[in-house]
Amino acid sequence: MSVQNPVFIPGPTNMPESVRKACDMPTIDHRSPTFARLFKPAVAGVKRVLKMAEGEVIILPSTGTGGWEAAVSNTLSPGDTVLAARFGMFSHRWIDLCQRHGLNVEIIETPWGEGAPLAAIEAALKADTSGKIKAVLATHNETATGVRSDIGGIRRAMDAAGHGAMLFVDGVSSIGSMPFDFAGWGVDIAVAGSQKGFMLPAGLAILGVSPKAIAAMETAKLPRTFFDFKDMLSSYARGGYPYTPAVGLIAGLAHSIELLEDEGLEAVYARHHRLAEGVRRAVAAWGMTPFAASPALYSDTVTAVKVPEGCNGTDLVQLAATKYGMAFGVGLGEVAGKVFRIGHLGMLTDAMVLSGLAVAEMCMADLGWPVKLGSGVAAAQEHYRGTAPAMALAAE
Amino acid sequence: MSVQNPVFIPGPTNMPESVRKACDMPTIDHRSPTFARLFKPAVAGVKRVLKMAEGEVIILPSTGTGGWEAAVSNTLSPGDTVLAARFGMFSHRWIDLCQRHGLNVEIIETPWGEGAPLAAIEAALKADTSGKIKAVLATHNETATGVRSDIGGIRRAMDAAGHGAMLFVDGVSSIGSMPFDFAGWGVDIAVAGSQKGFMLPAGLAILGVSPKAIAAMETAKLPRTFFDFKDMLSSYARGGYPYTPAVGLIAGLAHSIELLEDEGLEAVYARHHRLAEGVRRAVAAWGMTPFAASPALYSDTVTAVKVPEGCNGTDLVQLAATKYGMAFGVGLGEVAGKVFRIGHLGMLTDAMVLSGLAVAEMCMADLGWPVKLGSGVAAAQEHYRGTAPAMALAAE
Amino acid sequence: MSVQNPVFIPGPTNMPESVRKACDMPTIDHRSPTFARLFKPAVAGVKRVLKMAEGEVIILPSTGTGGWEAAVSNTLSPGDTVLAARFGMFSHRWIDLCQRHGLNVEIIETPWGEGAPLAAIEAALKADTSGKIKAVLATHNETATGVRSDIGGIRRAMDAAGHGAMLFVDGVSSIGSMPFDFAGWGVDIAVAGSQKGFMLPAGLAILGVSPKAIAAMETAKLPRTFFDFKDMLSSYARGGYPYTPAVGLIAGLAHSIELLEDEGLEAVYARHHRLAEGVRRAVAAWGMTPFAASPALYSDTVTAVKVPEGCNGTDLVQLAATKYGMAFGVGLGEVAGKVFRIGHLGMLTDAMVLSGLAVAEMCMADLGWPVKLGSGVAAAQEHYRGTAPAMALAAE
Amino acid sequence: MSVQNPVFIPGPTNMPESVRKACDMPTIDHRSPTFARLFKPAVAGVKRVLKMAEGEVIILPSTGTGGWEAAVSNTLSPGDTVLAARFGMFSHRWIDLCQRHGLNVEIIETPWGEGAPLAAIEAALKADTSGKIKAVLATHNETATGVRSDIGGIRRAMDAAGHGAMLFVDGVSSIGSMPFDFAGWGVDIAVAGSQKGFMLPAGLAILGVSPKAIAAMETAKLPRTFFDFKDMLSSYARGGYPYTPAVGLIAGLAHSIELLEDEGLEAVYARHHRLAEGVRRAVAAWGMTPFAASPALYSDTVTAVKVPEGCNGTDLVQLAATKYGMAFGVGLGEVAGKVFRIGHLGMLTDAMVLSGLAVAEMCMADLGWPVKLGSGVAAAQEHYRGTAPAMALAAE
Repeated sequence: MSVQNPVFIPGPTNMPESVRKACDMPTIDHRSPTFARLFKPAVAGVKRVLKMAEGEVIILPSTGTGGWEAAVSNTLSPGDTVLAARFGMFSHRWIDLCQRHGLNVEIIETPWGEGAPLAAIEAALKADTSGKIKAVLATHNETATGVRSDIGGIRRAMDAAGHGAMLFVDGVSSIGSMPFDFAGWGVDIAVAGSQKGFMLPAGLAILGVSPKAIAAMETAKLPRTFFDFKDMLSSYARGGYPYTPAVGLIAGLAHSIELLEDEGLEAVYARHHRLAEGVRRAVAAWGMTPFAASPALYSDTVTAVKVPEGCNGTDLVQLAATKYGMAFGVGLGEVAGKVFRIGHLGMLTDAMVLSGLAVAEMCMADLGWPVKLGSGVAAAQEHYRGTAPAMALAAE
Repeated sequence: MSVQNPVFIPGPTNMPESVRKACDMPTIDHRSPTFARLFKPAVAGVKRVLKMAEGEVIILPSTGTGGWEAAVSNTLSPGDTVLAARFGMFSHRWIDLCQRHGLNVEIIETPWGEGAPLAAIEAALKADTSGKIKAVLATHNETATGVRSDIGGIRRAMDAAGHGAMLFVDGVSSIGSMPFDFAGWGVDIAVAGSQKGFMLPAGLAILGVSPKAIAAMETAKLPRTFFDFKDMLSSYARGGYPYTPAVGLIAGLAHSIELLEDEGLEAVYARHHRLAEGVRRAVAAWGMTPFAASPALYSDTVTAVKVPEGCNGTDLVQLAATKYGMAFGVGLGEVAGKVFRIGHLGMLTDAMVLSGLAVAEMCMADLGWPVKLGSGVAAAQEHYRGTAPAMALAAE
Repeated sequence: MSVQNPVFIPGPTNMPESVRKACDMPTIDHRSPTFARLFKPAVAGVKRVLKMAEGEVIILPSTGTGGWEAAVSNTLSPGDTVLAARFGMFSHRWIDLCQRHGLNVEIIETPWGEGAPLAAIEAALKADTSGKIKAVLATHNETATGVRSDIGGIRRAMDAAGHGAMLFVDGVSSIGSMPFDFAGWGVDIAVAGSQKGFMLPAGLAILGVSPKAIAAMETAKLPRTFFDFKDMLSSYARGGYPYTPAVGLIAGLAHSIELLEDEGLEAVYARHHRLAEGVRRAVAAWGMTPFAASPALYSDTVTAVKVPEGCNGTDLVQLAATKYGMAFGVGLGEVAGKVFRIGHLGMLTDAMVLSGLAVAEMCMADLGWPVKLGSGVAAAQEHYRGTAPAMALAAE
Repeated sequence: MSVQNPVFIPGPTNMPESVRKACDMPTIDHRSPTFARLFKPAVAGVKRVLKMAEGEVIILPSTGTGGWEAAVSNTLSPGDTVLAARFGMFSHRWIDLCQRHGLNVEIIETPWGEGAPLAAIEAALKADTSGKIKAVLATHNETATGVRSDIGGIRRAMDAAGHGAMLFVDGVSSIGSMPFDFAGWGVDIAVAGSQKGFMLPAGLAILGVSPKAIAAMETAKLPRTFFDFKDMLSSYARGGYPYTPAVGLIAGLAHSIELLEDEGLEAVYARHHRLAEGVRRAVAAWGMTPFAASPALYSDTVTAVKVPEGCNGTDLVQLAATKYGMAFGVGLGEVAGKVFRIGHLGMLTDAMVLSGLAVAEMCMADLGWPVKLGSGVAAAQEHYRGTAPAMALAAE
């Protein structure tokens, strides 16, 4: 019988029943007003989740990678300079994408486990007296290391430097799960995907775009058609789409946002924090630590657990999959083997997290790691039972 | 957001994804050959699951209670005597049903927690020299107390008494999850429901009927139409149904049996035993015991956990539901408050069981019961990791 | 590829997408308040659909046949007399059920195609000066002949006779599709099923029960347990159910009633009438007539089409199924071969009906019946286009 | 109640029940072997549907437009020349995309309604003695005009010209519904989408790529990351994906191909032809003609119907949607108003097509067009009943 345990990869996440049903819809005519009736609430909802005060939302039948590509190709020209810190696999990949698109990336190499280096960013911007840096790229939540960077801090660094670059933020594994403040942080483009905080299948890149970034389209010379914002926006204005949209995912997105708002965005973030904290207490009980360099950097959506000397995180992930039918994330790139990752975002309950911790422990014992069965579970239980909302079912 | 934790009631069980999809079908014409193509495999599959060598399968759009009523109303007449032991809520209810249908029930009162009393049954049958006992009623798995009775033993008692009564078995919470041997045990009617070992929604009573029980229809005078076996069998013979069948559930039943047989019935039973044993080890680690009087009686589908003096099992069930969104079973009837019940049947994995145990522990701690967090989980983990099949995912 | 044409059997009906999704739900604890939250709106909604002013609703995991059995077994005793007219297969079956349950049925034999004979009923009641008739049984819509009887007329006949019998109405194929007035007609028990006007899968018997019928439970001696109203009502009062309910169907029922009420019950009835009238115009264009004896009797949920001399309606049904993948209803009982039936109830659109008519015409041509292709379709088109609501999609 | 009529837009198509269920799956770990087990059959199946003898299949979480962009960006460099005929909206859009990506498009302007002009293509290639044309772009089925071009003829023209350009084919609205011969026609890149012949939701671009096109990647300088073939192929080789794949759609694709192959690809094409021919006979009965210039060009997946003088096709489409809840396609670009389009591809039955024709007729009558109700339906009925497979349900 197919195994139906929850997944603990850092996305795609476990999906609520009702979100799956919202996505699974019969064919409609995407050129009809019926489509507009589905699409508009999705767009409006994204604006609220991102906390946008102005600007536009673009929804592409694509993924986070496509969202990155859309961000740069709509606003930049070959040879343009962008500033980015590299401190994990996903910040690396965005940099790589920029380079492949002919951009000049000024890279601030930063140890993995650290977050965006605010001082170095400020310094680099101050040094750019000619204003050649067109955009600062920031990975809000580095999924590879479980590190959340301080985007508000980057904005302050940019302001302190008096630099007019745009601020592009990869919020793929943060938006919808951790606080995001498009307006407050002065973000110019935020990139999200459907399969993380929005708890949908993969298949949508979701972007918030500021008026400044929209204006940049006029001069941007990188080629784009599939990702073209202008085609999108002019179609949206007519209630349409420039090509065939992923209708079911859009319907699901509108519904997912309803769920998030019914729970309350602040409550959603608090739930993620609470569940993440339980995981971290389990990690501590195991005698291990998150890979993130300091508690201020701890991500509420994914914990990369540093494994003991002589242990290999990938072994745990493989054993969990083959012996217990449960999915965790392996370490990627330079932390391959050194960590395993526990995703704790999207639709998730205390009980589900505890099942993940219990399976991780069994794997550790199987692999001879120095961990006492039940120890991490007990630490998480203690946290969860002490912090559970009075009536978890009230929102049902 | 609606809570989607696994359930730990002793049925309805957690349902496999593919079973739900098999049930959820568009309308077909139930008078067409299309229906026969769905129905025949379901009937044939039930025969294999029950281990029937001869006789017929009857599938009614009803529940286990309806199955009980069908069993007696098709084979008995008002004033007929049946022999039954009462040792739990479900054996009690069947007796009550018989009495309400005008049968004379010779009741062997047996302490709750015990199983069917073989010696007393043999004695009662031996004492019935006039052969007035037409049927022996046996509850294979008493869901209220977590007790599995020895049906083969009842057959041996009947044979030892040289008594010709029919043997009717309530296998609602055993069939499909624990070994059942219709032919070997000489069962005359076995009653199952869709919502337990078959992992379907409630809505089907599923009966295996021996040639002897079928012959009893000819003289049985209890009224019946909806439950009438003769109408059923004559319709089945034409590939039809005497009224509108529950088509989706029948399609789901056929599929569910495919899943069980793909896994292997023996493997299914072994899985239930292994998961149940983990639960029992957790119970022991909590310093508690199953309510069942002895290990030989322990059910592999449900454990009624005796709660410590001064504790109330119903409190735990209510707290689990309201605080953690997880469903356990309360104690029923004379064990109300004295036990809580953990269902461990149907679609279930190590990870799911561990999440149930972890939540139970949190509730115990919340209620001030003398239990150490993680202790039961650790005991179950130790059992599961030591007994896990090499490749749990191989069957996927 | 499996054929997914609409069905034109007179139930089960085509199901709305959202009804199927409401039914297809994960397992919940039916002993928890969650169940009560699903159940209460279903019960309240049924009361509104039936137009009940007082009394109770009983929902059984069963079918219409079970509903008939529940009606008589909860209110009558062996040997009691009931009055019923027989004018089709379903009125026949209810009579047969009563006889099998030991009731004395005073049968008014009425030609098939006619409706309930008001004068004869009144006469029979007047003749019953001793008041031995305990109940009048009436089939509101005789699905076999496509005849709708005048239930209000029966009530008037009963009142004219000054007879105190209860009035039991089989509304299986009328309720939810044609006007029903439980209070106005003085109905004592109304029987519906899930799979007709409620557009759900088969699996629920749905009954409205008057205070008078409830009072009759006290003295009724027919045996019942599965169908027992008293068990049901006492469980309902506690937010529970006496055994495992068909939770998904109950959730679906609540949702289905929402759909009906969103459209407006009067609009639903008008839609059924309009679609039925189109079918009747097609029948006329084919040179045929409905089997119902007069227009006042025409059912708005099913038309039994009298086939020309020398033609066999069953041939058409079989050809439609095997050659075109479309399901119609055969003639049953004494009209076997003489009619074929077009169900036009439940979720249905102009376009769907037209596809059914078009396929029926192809079959007629294939079978050499004297019908011009497109003729019936054209007649229905003319009716539909002239009567279509201004904005059919407005309710979407 | 939401309207659930079939759609007659030329894609997305009506989806089989089982395809929707295959797509609607719980989250799995896309980095696990479970994903590879889903992905490989999809890739292998696409090769068979395209009739590829060698080369690779690329599946992108995108749409046909993305597929076009992937085709050119992976194989060409800015300033490269491609040859394309423009004879409809979709050929126009591909040309526009190339221009926006800095390619030099040698455009053969061709009247809308015509197909790819073989002689002009041959002449252009012969004239290109310097070999600057790197690729010939061909739209196999121009969805805007209902025209199928002769791709084999283009290959012959290329061979006759002795020109070494690559041949890129837009098969979005043909593949899976009409014969396609990647190997036989010497196609270098074929572009398909999930939402047409594969009967899935929109969300996948599906490409067949020849070894020659793969080799062209090495020198192609157009920027790409999301669409990069090299990243894809190297990930595929490890059973993975370069970013998060659209897992459900991929599972659905594998299943859809199973359905197509169970029916038999030739039978699928024959079914499309037969259904299309019925539509064309209806069009003729209405006194209208397809917009395609000659019968050899008639598409079997979509018919653009030329409306009578003084009539506006868009009116019909809007009326069908608002009054009858049915979706047809409007005329696009220079044929706006002059045609309306009937899509007849994907999951479709005789009955469904007839319902579409019947609704179109009602709209025509409503709009005062000179058409007799039932006339087109009758013409299609005559065709369908004469050509129906003996047992349409056999494959069920």
